[in-house]
Amino acid sequence: MWLVLEEKKVPYQWVEVNPYHKPESLMRINPRGLVPTLEYHGKALYESSVLCEFIEDAYPDHKKLLPADAYDKAYSRLWSDFVSSRIIPAYHRYLQFQPATDEAGLDEKRQEFLGHLLTFSKAMKEPKEGGFFFGGAEPSMIDLIAAPWLQRLWVLDEFKGPFVIPQTEEWKRWNAWAKALTSLESYNETESEKQHLRKLYKR
Amino acid sequence: MWLVLEEKKVPYQWVEVNPYHKPESLMRINPRGLVPTLEYHGKALYESSVLCEFIEDAYPDHKKLLPADAYDKAYSRLWSDFVSSRIIPAYHRYLQFQPATDEAGLDEKRQEFLGHLLTFSKAMKEPKEGGFFFGGAEPSMIDLIAAPWLQRLWVLDEFKGPFVIPQTEEWKRWNAWAKALTSLESYNETESEKQHLRKLYKR
Repeated sequence: MWLVLEEKKVPYQWVEVNPYHKPESLMRINPRGLVPTLEYHGKALYESSVLCEFIEDAYPDHKKLLPADAYDKAYSRLWSDFVSSRIIPAYHRYLQFQPATDEAGLDEKRQEFLGHLLTFSKAMKEPKEGGFFFGGAEPSMIDLIAAPWLQRLWVLDEFKGPFVIPQTEEWKRWNAWAKALTSLESYNETESEKQHLRKLYKR
Repeated sequence: MWLVLEEKKVPYQWVEVNPYHKPESLMRINPRGLVPTLEYHGKALYESSVLCEFIEDAYPDHKKLLPADAYDKAYSRLWSDFVSSRIIPAYHRYLQFQPATDEAGLDEKRQEFLGHLLTFSKAMKEPKEGGFFFGGAEPSMIDLIAAPWLQRLWVLDEFKGPFVIPQTEEWKRWNAWAKALTSLESYNETESEKQHLRKLYKR
């Protein structure tokens, strides 16, 4: 959602909350205290995918992130769902795997996660000319929904031993995609400070 | 999705597949063989929520099922997500609970499911005049996404012992909603033949 706000240049105020001491300002608008919660004219919304679509709908005069064509839009949502239902859970299963001494078990989780990344990369368009974003030349919603997990690969590397994306033919599209993302200003601006995340993940 | 097609009066061809012997016509367009799969101009889409939004986008001249307002649309999607992430899993946990002799365990699953239905009903609008659909007077996307689970309550009743929605004040909005839905032609046309489902659930 953060990347979507940045890429669309929607004005917003970011309020960081302590997940162990949620402020009253959050609980008042969202009694379940979920983060991220977005407050819009005094009303609350949450759930990452709902928020991304909301920002797109509520700011139609800003840069468009969803394709206009109905099929292309559905295709984008299908892979956004793949990020939520496959990539994110596999990331956490790998990160939380215990004990670290069980190398075979750990490797299984790593391969599962890598497998999902590869499947995701195979769903990307092969651009006819320039641009290696998911849909080709321009970044769109699906890039921004997947990007935070690219930004967090270093966490796996730091806590679970070397995490390296192969530089093979099979991974060429993924690697080109990752490179395209790092060229975005919004991507660089939202790379969370590592120190801060390191503290969170240590728990 | 079936209800969405019916309510929008979108022309479609329904192909029933045997889940244990998936036909080549399905595997050709969707190698993962997921159902429902929608074929549109030779291309495949799947995932219930993606399909519902696709049908809305692809047939803009048919009856509109999503609110025009960005916040209302997001609110609808939020509760659609609640159906997928809470109501449906709790339905299955209750239905699949074993052993049936563990009455306390069974009751816990039943209460969990009922709790989600009640939460869902509390998110509905209190109509100022007539109409007890989720958003008030008119049926919309969220009604049609939740409806299949209302249609399937009898399965719980049949396999897990009496399943009764209380006729109390607390349940008034749910009961009014359920009654509103049964007034829809699309709802009645899509009530799957019980005999057929009974066979499936027995497995």
